[in-house]
Amino acid sequence: MKWKRSERLVDMTHYLLDHPHKLIPLTYFADLYQSAKSSISEDLGIVKETFEQKGIGLLATVPGASGGVKYIPKMQETEIREIMQELISELSHSDRLLPGGYLYMTDVLGNPDMMNRVGKVFATAFADQKIDVIMTVATKGIPIAHAIARHLNVPVVIVRRDSKVTEGSTVSINYVSGSSRRIQTMVLSKRSMKSGQRVLITDDFMKVGGTMNGMKNLLEEFDCSLAGVAVLVEAEHKDEQLVEKYLSLVKLREVSEKERKIELQEGNYFAEGGF
Amino acid sequence: MKWKRSERLVDMTHYLLDHPHKLIPLTYFADLYQSAKSSISEDLGIVKETFEQKGIGLLATVPGASGGVKYIPKMQETEIREIMQELISELSHSDRLLPGGYLYMTDVLGNPDMMNRVGKVFATAFADQKIDVIMTVATKGIPIAHAIARHLNVPVVIVRRDSKVTEGSTVSINYVSGSSRRIQTMVLSKRSMKSGQRVLITDDFMKVGGTMNGMKNLLEEFDCSLAGVAVLVEAEHKDEQLVEKYLSLVKLREVSEKERKIELQEGNYFAEGGF
Repeated sequence: MKWKRSERLVDMTHYLLDHPHKLIPLTYFADLYQSAKSSISEDLGIVKETFEQKGIGLLATVPGASGGVKYIPKMQETEIREIMQELISELSHSDRLLPGGYLYMTDVLGNPDMMNRVGKVFATAFADQKIDVIMTVATKGIPIAHAIARHLNVPVVIVRRDSKVTEGSTVSINYVSGSSRRIQTMVLSKRSMKSGQRVLITDDFMKVGGTMNGMKNLLEEFDCSLAGVAVLVEAEHKDEQLVEKYLSLVKLREVSEKERKIELQEGNYFAEGGF
Repeated sequence: MKWKRSERLVDMTHYLLDHPHKLIPLTYFADLYQSAKSSISEDLGIVKETFEQKGIGLLATVPGASGGVKYIPKMQETEIREIMQELISELSHSDRLLPGGYLYMTDVLGNPDMMNRVGKVFATAFADQKIDVIMTVATKGIPIAHAIARHLNVPVVIVRRDSKVTEGSTVSINYVSGSSRRIQTMVLSKRSMKSGQRVLITDDFMKVGGTMNGMKNLLEEFDCSLAGVAVLVEAEHKDEQLVEKYLSLVKLREVSEKERKIELQEGNYFAEGGF
């Protein structure tokens, strides 16, 4: 079957979006569409220009015999700021206040469209770095981890509080939780990571950073290294920060249970060079 | 700025893929691209044909003033069978055998590309039904739930084993786990569902169906109804099945710890009319 350019453009766009951070040889498309490489190159030029103009992402072309084209999801600054503002206005509703000054965020974490966008925001920040694995701790970080992973095309590993029979042999560490200063345990399946991998850790919420620090210690047990830390909401506090370098989208400045007020502002995403 | 057809096609394809099951008025595209509605209709005709030919999905057009176009993710039978076979061959490696005859699947659940495809498979089966919420139980069903939710454009709610302060008030039920006959507890945040919603429940693994049945009971507490049950791997067993109607992708026939053999076959997806 012979494909028209318009059909090739639609199908190609779908294929590229479905395979982020994957090098696709030009011959793949040439064979698929029974078209000359020169036509495919022209098609990709149109896709590239549109992706860049509309802030969908970049199309990187790698020349040579083993070359090809790679779609790199990248959001534009304006869109990222819009997402931050949307999160701030959504999370500042006073009915989100829970006893103890906690914030109800479960619905936001259960919104697949929002998670997809948050994942793309963090994938934008780490697009040029070597990331092999995304790590989070059960349960609430999982949607964020999977959303980032989908855009970076890398696997997710999930740290648990307790070991389960379905995980096989595990490595376990103790760590001190940040705010409560209690000793806690973290467990990760032994076969979930290979030594030498570069790991991006993520979670929905971070205060002092005890959980993040626990994950950092766990990385060492696997001879892996930290590639970055991504947090949806960080909270202001007076204790010593356990994690030095991280990216956050939203910062919880203050919670007043009495006045039922939640004060939020932009996180450090742009300040820390996430963009 | 004036858009060329080729650019419109690329951008439109991205927008539609990013907004599944959402009705988009033609005027949205007409305004965005500064183009006549007739041109937009022609563009959509090309997208529609390519989507259908390549098994990406359907473009449903709703006529009239409040009408528009809706992208419905749908996979073709051949692709679904390929995914089933890929899962079977991946999961039948003998080194997945864990003590007690359990199967190590954590890496498969941590593979975002596989989860995305599994999500689309189940979204295909439930594309024509009214689904308001996807429900799963922590932890391992979460990636599947989010993947389905992303393709159906509905929120995810996560049932937990224990209540957490960040969930606010919760509804809790006791249920009998299928195989071990033990009484267990399930907890769901009160604000996570409204009465009258239709819920698709999902999990990574099902034997007798105790956990699924627990979630069904939980639905009743919220005055919600069951829209369907989607399972990645079901296991053969001799007890009474607690869940009558469900879709599975893979069936675990037999596990022999002694001979280190795992016997898998296609699940009931096609037999039960998932397609």
